[in-house]
Amino acid sequence: MARIVVKFGGTSVADIERIKSVAARVKRIVDQGNEVAVVVSAMAGATNQLVQWVREAATLHDAREYDVVVASGEQVTAGLVAIALQEAGVDARSWLGWQIPVRTDGAHGKARIAGIDGDALIARMARGQVPVVAGFQGIGPEGRVTTLGRGGSDTSAVALAAAVRADRCDIYTDVDGVYTTDPRIVAKARKLNKITYEEMLELASVGAKVLQTRSVEIAMNHGVRVQVLSSFTDEPGTLVVDEGEIVEQEVVSGIAYSRDEAKITLIKVADRPGVAAAIFGPLADANVNVDMIVQNVSEDGRATDLTFTVSKADYDRAVQILEARRASLGFDRLVGDKNVAKISVIGVGMRSHAGIALRMFTALAEKGINIQVISTSEIKVSVLVAEEYTELAVRALHTAYGLDAA
Amino acid sequence: MARIVVKFGGTSVADIERIKSVAARVKRIVDQGNEVAVVVSAMAGATNQLVQWVREAATLHDAREYDVVVASGEQVTAGLVAIALQEAGVDARSWLGWQIPVRTDGAHGKARIAGIDGDALIARMARGQVPVVAGFQGIGPEGRVTTLGRGGSDTSAVALAAAVRADRCDIYTDVDGVYTTDPRIVAKARKLNKITYEEMLELASVGAKVLQTRSVEIAMNHGVRVQVLSSFTDEPGTLVVDEGEIVEQEVVSGIAYSRDEAKITLIKVADRPGVAAAIFGPLADANVNVDMIVQNVSEDGRATDLTFTVSKADYDRAVQILEARRASLGFDRLVGDKNVAKISVIGVGMRSHAGIALRMFTALAEKGINIQVISTSEIKVSVLVAEEYTELAVRALHTAYGLDAA
Repeated sequence: MARIVVKFGGTSVADIERIKSVAARVKRIVDQGNEVAVVVSAMAGATNQLVQWVREAATLHDAREYDVVVASGEQVTAGLVAIALQEAGVDARSWLGWQIPVRTDGAHGKARIAGIDGDALIARMARGQVPVVAGFQGIGPEGRVTTLGRGGSDTSAVALAAAVRADRCDIYTDVDGVYTTDPRIVAKARKLNKITYEEMLELASVGAKVLQTRSVEIAMNHGVRVQVLSSFTDEPGTLVVDEGEIVEQEVVSGIAYSRDEAKITLIKVADRPGVAAAIFGPLADANVNVDMIVQNVSEDGRATDLTFTVSKADYDRAVQILEARRASLGFDRLVGDKNVAKISVIGVGMRSHAGIALRMFTALAEKGINIQVISTSEIKVSVLVAEEYTELAVRALHTAYGLDAA
Repeated sequence: MARIVVKFGGTSVADIERIKSVAARVKRIVDQGNEVAVVVSAMAGATNQLVQWVREAATLHDAREYDVVVASGEQVTAGLVAIALQEAGVDARSWLGWQIPVRTDGAHGKARIAGIDGDALIARMARGQVPVVAGFQGIGPEGRVTTLGRGGSDTSAVALAAAVRADRCDIYTDVDGVYTTDPRIVAKARKLNKITYEEMLELASVGAKVLQTRSVEIAMNHGVRVQVLSSFTDEPGTLVVDEGEIVEQEVVSGIAYSRDEAKITLIKVADRPGVAAAIFGPLADANVNVDMIVQNVSEDGRATDLTFTVSKADYDRAVQILEARRASLGFDRLVGDKNVAKISVIGVGMRSHAGIALRMFTALAEKGINIQVISTSEIKVSVLVAEEYTELAVRALHTAYGLDAA
């Protein structure tokens, strides 16, 4: 017997037939003797329709009213899933964000959960009732409806699992787990049985968007064991857990890629204290996230080239901001390139293994792929390559690290 | 300057374009120096879709969950109308039932309003903000979402008008007022400028469903002046007010009809004390509403014929209940007839005028229409006729009471 929070995404509750399947699945988990709480997203497409209405009503709109409109989608599915569970013979009731309550900060449209009182739900679960919680929503400091941002139902589920001290949080989705890389690129990609929070964060942040990043952070901070699995099969999925739970750690767990970055190089930047702050300060002020940064030691001690990446969506704005400050920053010229891709090798095991990066560079060199920028962290080595090499690079690395399925 | 609650029905907020028209209209009322609160229904069709989902999920469903699902429709429009108002330059914010709060009893699906705290809204209106209230919904004694039953947004609006001590409650709808009778039947039907609460109640209960009956009762009890008007024109509508406000009261205000009744006659019912209770008790227990009842004095003091009407929807159930009790009730046989219509002449003025009923009987006799059953109240005379005479009877009476437009 365990206490489990199960979360179903929009495709899993897209119509009444699927909602009945969800109810049948939850009933099986309950019948196995588990205490279960359910977290639901809006029906697939519902949120998009609501967002479109808001945008048609006003291009610039009050985020508080946006939240009122958009949160209705999860309210609908919470009620419908509760009804379907009751129809299947399971004691169930819906809970809206303000009823539990799921307290959040006041950042409407992208609120962060401040706290969830799990006591009422724990008491209900203990006497066999299944709470069906509307994901994605909470209540702000002024008693108004808030939402957590797109994909926020994952965060709701993991935070709820922490609040009710669940043994596990099962995220049902339209993929059956986390893979060593994108199966659309590498046919021999393998599903991972287990992965650490840290690896999951790196995989999510570089493009494998199975879970919302924030939900993984909360899981890591509260030690919530998360399972990603398919709502269309009965196969076990991928467990996202603490490093200590993984006995035989693979050196490299996966290969990730992102086509979402653009490269900017400032030629002959003055090499003096404070220049980095002068460059990145205005970008941060404009909410432009900078990812990889490379600066070489300058040859003459006076000027150097500085290269960094931003998301493609922010590229034009970043260029505009920098060009406007060319004189004060003192660079010679700006060279930009949107035709780049970031390829990353990820694994907590690489901390204790030398030669991980070397194997990467060798494998890419053998395929004639030029590395433009390199960036490393404790559990990740990323390189920037020309975008056209993306698939080739991913496949070469997947093979080089022994990840191919037999 | 006045304080006005304005309510918009589903067709008035059916899409974003109409929502913008609603915002423009509210802005004009605000610009005239009025304090305004808005009450909205769900977008036309939205509630039907939600109800259909609930029914597909389970034929018999938890009314508390039904309310969670169905109340989402008004939540969406409250947010969208607030956004459209802001876009039009009007300070506005949405209010959900639980936020005000609109406290109701726990009769989910058909809850009655127990009280509305108007202070917060009065304060906001005083400083120029327009509250946009989700109609049809409230919060029950256990903190769960309740709904007031179909058409409940009218009730929300009138109750809110009472709570904020509004000078008037304007109900915008797809008709432009209350007519002397159904204009589809009588081309010369006239729009009434004013009508009393009592007349409106009779008109509503006999088929002219412009306002939900409950909303008129609340308006009458709290002295809320209600105006019914079209959201597609700028014409004044019909004011529903206290009798004292109508200086020149017409004797008869309107002719109503209902094809929704069925007639049941019990032949040779034992004429002894308690028999009426024995007949109507079981019907009441089965929630069958009985409308007109006629019983003649029996000729021999031993048996009489009893005739009454029920709604057509309840007819089969009523017959079943009575037949099952034939022996104990001691009637000879049951004769039923679904091909009947109820025609009513309504007017508070008839209290002080003799001959109103006589004129009705004369006018019908002149057209050769046989009267099956007669029932009278202080402000209404109703007769049951064969259904095929409905239009003929309505037109004859409309002319007979001088209601035809010039």
